[in-house]
Amino acid sequence: MFRTFDEIEHHILSSGVKKRIALTGAHDSYSLEAVVHAKRRGLVTAALLGRVDEIASLLRSMDEPQDGYELIGCETEEENARRAVAMVHEGKADMPMKGLLQTSAYMHAVLDKNMGLLPQGGLLSQSTLVEWTKEGRMFQITDCAINIAPDVQQKKKIVENAVRFAHRLGCECPKVAVVSAVEVVNPKIPSTVEAVALKQACRNGELPGCIVGGPLGLDNAVSLQAARHKGVTDPAAGSADILVMPELCAGNIFTKSITFFAGLRSAGVLLGTITPVIATSRTDTPENKYHGILMSLLNAL
Amino acid sequence: MFRTFDEIEHHILSSGVKKRIALTGAHDSYSLEAVVHAKRRGLVTAALLGRVDEIASLLRSMDEPQDGYELIGCETEEENARRAVAMVHEGKADMPMKGLLQTSAYMHAVLDKNMGLLPQGGLLSQSTLVEWTKEGRMFQITDCAINIAPDVQQKKKIVENAVRFAHRLGCECPKVAVVSAVEVVNPKIPSTVEAVALKQACRNGELPGCIVGGPLGLDNAVSLQAARHKGVTDPAAGSADILVMPELCAGNIFTKSITFFAGLRSAGVLLGTITPVIATSRTDTPENKYHGILMSLLNAL
Repeated sequence: MFRTFDEIEHHILSSGVKKRIALTGAHDSYSLEAVVHAKRRGLVTAALLGRVDEIASLLRSMDEPQDGYELIGCETEEENARRAVAMVHEGKADMPMKGLLQTSAYMHAVLDKNMGLLPQGGLLSQSTLVEWTKEGRMFQITDCAINIAPDVQQKKKIVENAVRFAHRLGCECPKVAVVSAVEVVNPKIPSTVEAVALKQACRNGELPGCIVGGPLGLDNAVSLQAARHKGVTDPAAGSADILVMPELCAGNIFTKSITFFAGLRSAGVLLGTITPVIATSRTDTPENKYHGILMSLLNAL
Repeated sequence: MFRTFDEIEHHILSSGVKKRIALTGAHDSYSLEAVVHAKRRGLVTAALLGRVDEIASLLRSMDEPQDGYELIGCETEEENARRAVAMVHEGKADMPMKGLLQTSAYMHAVLDKNMGLLPQGGLLSQSTLVEWTKEGRMFQITDCAINIAPDVQQKKKIVENAVRFAHRLGCECPKVAVVSAVEVVNPKIPSTVEAVALKQACRNGELPGCIVGGPLGLDNAVSLQAARHKGVTDPAAGSADILVMPELCAGNIFTKSITFFAGLRSAGVLLGTITPVIATSRTDTPENKYHGILMSLLNAL
């Protein structure tokens, strides 16, 4: 299994993959910088949608020749998003990427029933891949950005999406920890009850290719020492590869804490779509966004 | 305002305060070590409840003379907890402290309607004080351990409790950030709606001695740079002193992330009781537990 983003980059570079990005709202220095970097590495070509004058000016400021790109004028956020997704449908691009536009406008196009990129019966979910330097390994946190209060059925799909991505990361049988505040089942804390249901689903063969454990506190999910001290013997305890969050806010706050307090590198990825969809956050750095591109290329290999 | 636990310790040492702890389930090396350390610093005296033979043996292993303590034999967890709380009621001790016993048994005694330590109409809440080394300041996260899914009325009391503690910490008008996953109100995300209600309550004078802001993502609550980048102008943005969590799991996971990923020092404190109540976690180190004692001494000054 990959242990760092650098290892992932190395793997993708040596695979010879090259995909075409449709960057929507491309008049955004951070997003454009990430795409330019990926293009210079030989990983992507790109169509740049949005305000063409601004895009051209940004490319100049980066000393990047404009003739390597297709610039497409789009006015509104809706037009930007729709055009990018349509290009993927028409085979003119492999993956859309979100630049300077509201997430809602972007997701509206991605999730459109007729023209969107979600398979029937599928669930779109988000996962954040974290590079845990101290332990020399990576793990996923899901869902930190899309599903507000998923029920058990939705959490099953969130787990499926994350497990499929873990396999891409070279983790053959990921340990999935259903995280809560406590290790004992308490009907007043839904995530503890859901943990039992998800473990049962795994035992029944409904969640293949992984081991599901929980409910686990975060300490027991990630630290073998903490798990031992509390006498927790759960199969996913201590070294979980996938941390399933109780609900959106917990995932969102945890992911941001990883960045702002622990200073670890991380990248978000959208899962469950027909083709990879790149959707990074407005506060992501160019490096984050470049890692987001790498995640999607990995999913496209 | 205090910036480190060492500053708090220095302040308490120079105040000359001395309180009597009733350590229940004292046959626990970590808890006992913390109490012995506080006693050696001249901050406390202590009654030690539990299995007296084991307690005596632990004291010997710490080279601590037994005659400085009152040893009281208690068999069951219930007896341990009840006796400690009763001692505080009878003026034989100033504050109970949890050693080796289940939180539920301990809290049952603390919250007992007749003999407990909660004022009528009060709400018990928990807050974690974090020492943010990089920024040279401290902040609170609340609630990470007690209230599972507090509604607006309960959150008002959680804020009141934390604000009162912030005043003890020398923060005259704390900035209270009601944290969520997003900055815009979304009826499907209760914490965003509650943020508006709490801000309104503050404006109405129902939450004096603080400034309430939100809904805020964690990034905008703690980082001025992130707040500026997203154009967030909320009065609590960027440098919040109190982070109000959406619900228990989010608080619990965030607090544990602060310890396990960011490696910051933190200490939990119970708020809203008549007298300070020391309740640390089983996985806390002696240092954590000693900081827990300091928090309660600060509350007793």
